[in-house]
Amino acid sequence: MATPVVTLLTDFGTRDAYVGIMKGVILGLCAEARIVDVTHEIPAHQVTAGALVLRSAAPFFPPGTIHVAVVDPGVGTARAGVLVQAHGGCFIGPDNGLLFPAAAAMGIERVVEIRNPAYGMPRVSATFHGRDIFAPAAGHLAAGASVASFGMDRSLQPLDLPVPFHTEAAIMGEVIHVDHFGNLTTNISKEDLRGFPGSSLSVSIARCARIPFVLAYADVAPGALAALIGSWDCVEIACRGGSAAATTAAGVGAAVTVRAR
Amino acid sequence: MATPVVTLLTDFGTRDAYVGIMKGVILGLCAEARIVDVTHEIPAHQVTAGALVLRSAAPFFPPGTIHVAVVDPGVGTARAGVLVQAHGGCFIGPDNGLLFPAAAAMGIERVVEIRNPAYGMPRVSATFHGRDIFAPAAGHLAAGASVASFGMDRSLQPLDLPVPFHTEAAIMGEVIHVDHFGNLTTNISKEDLRGFPGSSLSVSIARCARIPFVLAYADVAPGALAALIGSWDCVEIACRGGSAAATTAAGVGAAVTVRAR
Amino acid sequence: MATPVVTLLTDFGTRDAYVGIMKGVILGLCAEARIVDVTHEIPAHQVTAGALVLRSAAPFFPPGTIHVAVVDPGVGTARAGVLVQAHGGCFIGPDNGLLFPAAAAMGIERVVEIRNPAYGMPRVSATFHGRDIFAPAAGHLAAGASVASFGMDRSLQPLDLPVPFHTEAAIMGEVIHVDHFGNLTTNISKEDLRGFPGSSLSVSIARCARIPFVLAYADVAPGALAALIGSWDCVEIACRGGSAAATTAAGVGAAVTVRAR
Repeated sequence: MATPVVTLLTDFGTRDAYVGIMKGVILGLCAEARIVDVTHEIPAHQVTAGALVLRSAAPFFPPGTIHVAVVDPGVGTARAGVLVQAHGGCFIGPDNGLLFPAAAAMGIERVVEIRNPAYGMPRVSATFHGRDIFAPAAGHLAAGASVASFGMDRSLQPLDLPVPFHTEAAIMGEVIHVDHFGNLTTNISKEDLRGFPGSSLSVSIARCARIPFVLAYADVAPGALAALIGSWDCVEIACRGGSAAATTAAGVGAAVTVRAR
Repeated sequence: MATPVVTLLTDFGTRDAYVGIMKGVILGLCAEARIVDVTHEIPAHQVTAGALVLRSAAPFFPPGTIHVAVVDPGVGTARAGVLVQAHGGCFIGPDNGLLFPAAAAMGIERVVEIRNPAYGMPRVSATFHGRDIFAPAAGHLAAGASVASFGMDRSLQPLDLPVPFHTEAAIMGEVIHVDHFGNLTTNISKEDLRGFPGSSLSVSIARCARIPFVLAYADVAPGALAALIGSWDCVEIACRGGSAAATTAAGVGAAVTVRAR
Repeated sequence: MATPVVTLLTDFGTRDAYVGIMKGVILGLCAEARIVDVTHEIPAHQVTAGALVLRSAAPFFPPGTIHVAVVDPGVGTARAGVLVQAHGGCFIGPDNGLLFPAAAAMGIERVVEIRNPAYGMPRVSATFHGRDIFAPAAGHLAAGASVASFGMDRSLQPLDLPVPFHTEAAIMGEVIHVDHFGNLTTNISKEDLRGFPGSSLSVSIARCARIPFVLAYADVAPGALAALIGSWDCVEIACRGGSAAATTAAGVGAAVTVRAR
């Protein structure tokens, strides 16, 4: 069997031992697992933010990768834990919508509830299912346990994401992610632009002058705003050598319009 | 031999190359080591804070794990470096109390001073024993060197931790850790509560109204404070969907009282 | 073949999935790669800062390590991507000076442009060459591809670093790095001090009183400034138990003078 890759995405931050503990649990069950951090800086309890980052990352991992994601404001309640077998990888986490966009983008094949007590910690806490349920599940799955052995089939809770609105003259969407550089990623995808009249487009956000649509950051002057297709394959607003978030004072949820220049 | 797991806990932060360099040194001596970060965000020079996080993490790693911990305000002085063989794992670091709580909790079997010059860098700096002494020691130990070969037996410097005070009517303890979510972990353990009269307890901190003792965060209303047994198996004060540290304005050292409601 | 070590140094931060995605791409091409983070907190677009940290780290990794570094304000422009074979390791990244100091310090043996389209993503974005070009190059190199197969030989863009100025009575240099502890690393190396008159030196910075040159942090009183040879083998200004950056209010670029006391 190939060395299994296990990814972790959480809102746990990195100042506590929470993430390290999950890795210890996984390695105790599957010594050969290659564990990769996606990020642990999802804002606390923000399921949609975590879901979007997970969706942006999962397709770039090798087939068979096990993605563990824990952004879990309902920890300790009746919300289920799930294992999703998707085309090209599996997902493990709380069934609160977090896993849905990534799994749906890759193609959901099967969803089971994580219920087999043999796969969890002997004593499950009310506050840390990452350690007590999800890391053990990932370790067992990486070590070869079958998807069916985790529990009964069930459906996966979907997550509603904002969709852009198309008119003849424009596409109206919104900012869905602000990255480390202050780039603003929108929910207007490359596909949304297909068939849109005019090869020269411009983008509006906040009270800024229309932003030119370019091919690379360096196509505008230093300090100027540019719109382009970013690494999420969506319209992204950037500031060359600076932060578009700071320049525009816009954040997640800000309205964005694409139209012919 | 099983693939050795090596954990790292430091106050080095992650903006410099210090942690990466330690990993390079370890992999140069034991290419098969699986290195796991516990955290590198222990506040600078705070030995007790590091000791508590290490103790919270070490029991969850596979038997034979080598825990390297470096919070070392005395680097370059005469304080010794030690290797502790404990039940279920080894600890490497400065002998300043940092390793004591974790090693004692797991059961100390043997302590030796790290003195064998064959196991250190040819030239030892006065500022970075993580690179020059502790990472090499971990690499050699992971590659199979015997504990005895590191140096002479010695005793391990203990660390005094605050202990809770019991009366007939109450247990008085204090906050010992504030986590990423703003949860306040206290030094009042689940065992301290055993035999305490009344199954319905309440907790006091700062000038807040008495906080109900519950089973899960979601047992109180959003924004409300709750006390529960947290992932350290100690009384923890949390704020559902928020930060108890911000809500109570309390931090490490704040007095906490548990009594019958 | 030995397990290849691949290091990553970027200005990507850790709140997005960018670094995790690079690791997924590498592991998809070379499942056995051991990936080590050097740091991802180089200030955005600061090539010199990244080059200095890379130079401080690379010599401590095992022979054959592949160092991937991406601080790339020119992403999407005509600047080339390069693979540098150096004595003891390889470097992969944009040809903007970032790789030069580390590669030169280790001894440059060969430089090729990364051009072979078979080694990149089928579709190369204009914004994320870490994912589309550099991670794939590292994965293929780790999996055994020859240096020659990446592209034509070329020269490596140098990077001008500030050099200290020597007089008979003093050496004048500057701060080139401020670390997590607030230690100020200067460009005055241990070699620069060789042959300098007097074994008792002092250091001046900003408007501070002359700082004594010592062997270890603990040679001065708590809270006092000290100068010593730090882990970069350069003169470093530190504050025992505190932050020299905060105490002196000096940062990168601040003038530093070493003279006989």
